[in-house]
Amino acid sequence: MRCLYFDGQLRCRDDHPAPRPAPGEALVRVHYAGVCNTDREILAGYKGFTGILGHEFVGVVEQGAGWEGQRVVADINLGCGRCPRCLAGLPNHCEGRRVLGISGKDGAFADWLTVPLANLRAVPPGVGDLEAVFAEPLAAALEICDQCHIRPSERVAVLGDGKLGQLVARVLSLTGCHLTVVGRHAAKLALLAGRAETVLEGQAGTLAPCDLVVECTGNPGGLALAQNLVKPRGRIVLKSTFAGDATLSSTLWVVNELTLVGSRCGPLAAALRLLERRLVDVAPLVGGPYPLADFPAAFAPPNGLKGIFDCRTA
Amino acid sequence: MRCLYFDGQLRCRDDHPAPRPAPGEALVRVHYAGVCNTDREILAGYKGFTGILGHEFVGVVEQGAGWEGQRVVADINLGCGRCPRCLAGLPNHCEGRRVLGISGKDGAFADWLTVPLANLRAVPPGVGDLEAVFAEPLAAALEICDQCHIRPSERVAVLGDGKLGQLVARVLSLTGCHLTVVGRHAAKLALLAGRAETVLEGQAGTLAPCDLVVECTGNPGGLALAQNLVKPRGRIVLKSTFAGDATLSSTLWVVNELTLVGSRCGPLAAALRLLERRLVDVAPLVGGPYPLADFPAAFAPPNGLKGIFDCRTA
Repeated sequence: MRCLYFDGQLRCRDDHPAPRPAPGEALVRVHYAGVCNTDREILAGYKGFTGILGHEFVGVVEQGAGWEGQRVVADINLGCGRCPRCLAGLPNHCEGRRVLGISGKDGAFADWLTVPLANLRAVPPGVGDLEAVFAEPLAAALEICDQCHIRPSERVAVLGDGKLGQLVARVLSLTGCHLTVVGRHAAKLALLAGRAETVLEGQAGTLAPCDLVVECTGNPGGLALAQNLVKPRGRIVLKSTFAGDATLSSTLWVVNELTLVGSRCGPLAAALRLLERRLVDVAPLVGGPYPLADFPAAFAPPNGLKGIFDCRTA
Repeated sequence: MRCLYFDGQLRCRDDHPAPRPAPGEALVRVHYAGVCNTDREILAGYKGFTGILGHEFVGVVEQGAGWEGQRVVADINLGCGRCPRCLAGLPNHCEGRRVLGISGKDGAFADWLTVPLANLRAVPPGVGDLEAVFAEPLAAALEICDQCHIRPSERVAVLGDGKLGQLVARVLSLTGCHLTVVGRHAAKLALLAGRAETVLEGQAGTLAPCDLVVECTGNPGGLALAQNLVKPRGRIVLKSTFAGDATLSSTLWVVNELTLVGSRCGPLAAALRLLERRLVDVAPLVGGPYPLADFPAAFAPPNGLKGIFDCRTA
């Protein structure tokens, strides 16, 4: 089959053996798959992954007890199912977990992939393929709401106007909070018109102090800006994964009694509900679609859009 | 009057004018006053403070509407009383706050100090002076319990066997949690016998992962150790104030969805209740008492004890 395979170098292969589902797994024909910044980080060495990249996808089950013909997305964390964390309902934090296209398990930039049946989520009929492919990153945005009580009366800032910042802003706008997105690109910020106030990073100093700041910049400087914007007793949510460390003004942290919350994957079923209810519009974020062979373009689409592979085109 | 005055250099003066209470303030004759690491940080330039040091004290009111003769301790944050944070019951986070012996207001290393009546807390009769002088730092330890739900079934580590770590460990032991204190000094750790397991820092790698880690080391390396010890989805409480920054492994933070909570001053009335109920034994922590003139000794008592000034002795 065709796939994007990484072994220190990313290549489009058409001679890769198609995967065979293990017991308890489904075989899924991939329709669309989205490029995430984590994919870029993997190319830079993150997780030391070798295999087929891709963890955001929508497809149709071709084999899998009772699921055949169903359009699906999937939770990307594959817990062992036996450890205390899995038994506590936290497979996302299983120490022995594999993660689709990220760690120990081939991903979705391919004709087919295999996924445990327990990880599948049916896509509602009213949600199109090009929307459903956003379910996984949208769930990651929703994780913030699972972790933090965001009050409608609060002042919230999202730092970063990239793919993740766009989704986070769309989700947080639903709470009714006073929302400002801080970015570096007027064109990207314009995508948020009607949902949030926007401000270019150079003008962030004019913002009123915030109850909650979500760091989605993908670079270490984002935390410093967040520290400048947050109120005493406020919260900073860290969504960016990037190689390297960030610097914490520890005395500021103690004196102002700030809270930092790291945040990763989230509730996929809730993300599908938001899409089904047409509460989040992802259409303006679609970059492409591209065939797999056009991966250099899909990894760097114009205007910071999300590169989407159409895995059914040659 | 006598006092310890800092203006870039710490000196014991006996010619300082006694303070006069402003309207709404009490004049307090200081009995005992304790040395905190923050005092040491001020000597190193923290807050750019000039004036009389000292914010942990017990004394007797000499002037103050109805309070005369009462033994008291005091909340050290003096809010403006008019801003939104003060009106919201958060004078500790008033932007214009003064802080006894730390910022904009003379402190307790003196014969007398003045304190707003609203900040006074009566010391119960059963609590001795040498216990009550620990009320302020004990409240700071209790702030952790105000901010975090600590479950009896959780595994908690306190990093640091110094003055603050000792009080934090004593408070957290009351929750029934599985408690380990990590320190660098066998003699200090021995003070916690019967209340917590203890381990020398070099052996911290043998600890089981913790639900909560409280960083009281007073140095930037403490956060790195805390990150190594905490479970996925766990919490780190940062109590140390020190000049400089700390380094955060930001990807670890996101992937493991950790929470960091900065923590400062706490509930003084609750601290007095713990002392009154004899639930926290501070006697083994008393260094001295010392007369004010012996400040070099009081700032560096043996075995990491808390240097206590007896402000009534010459």
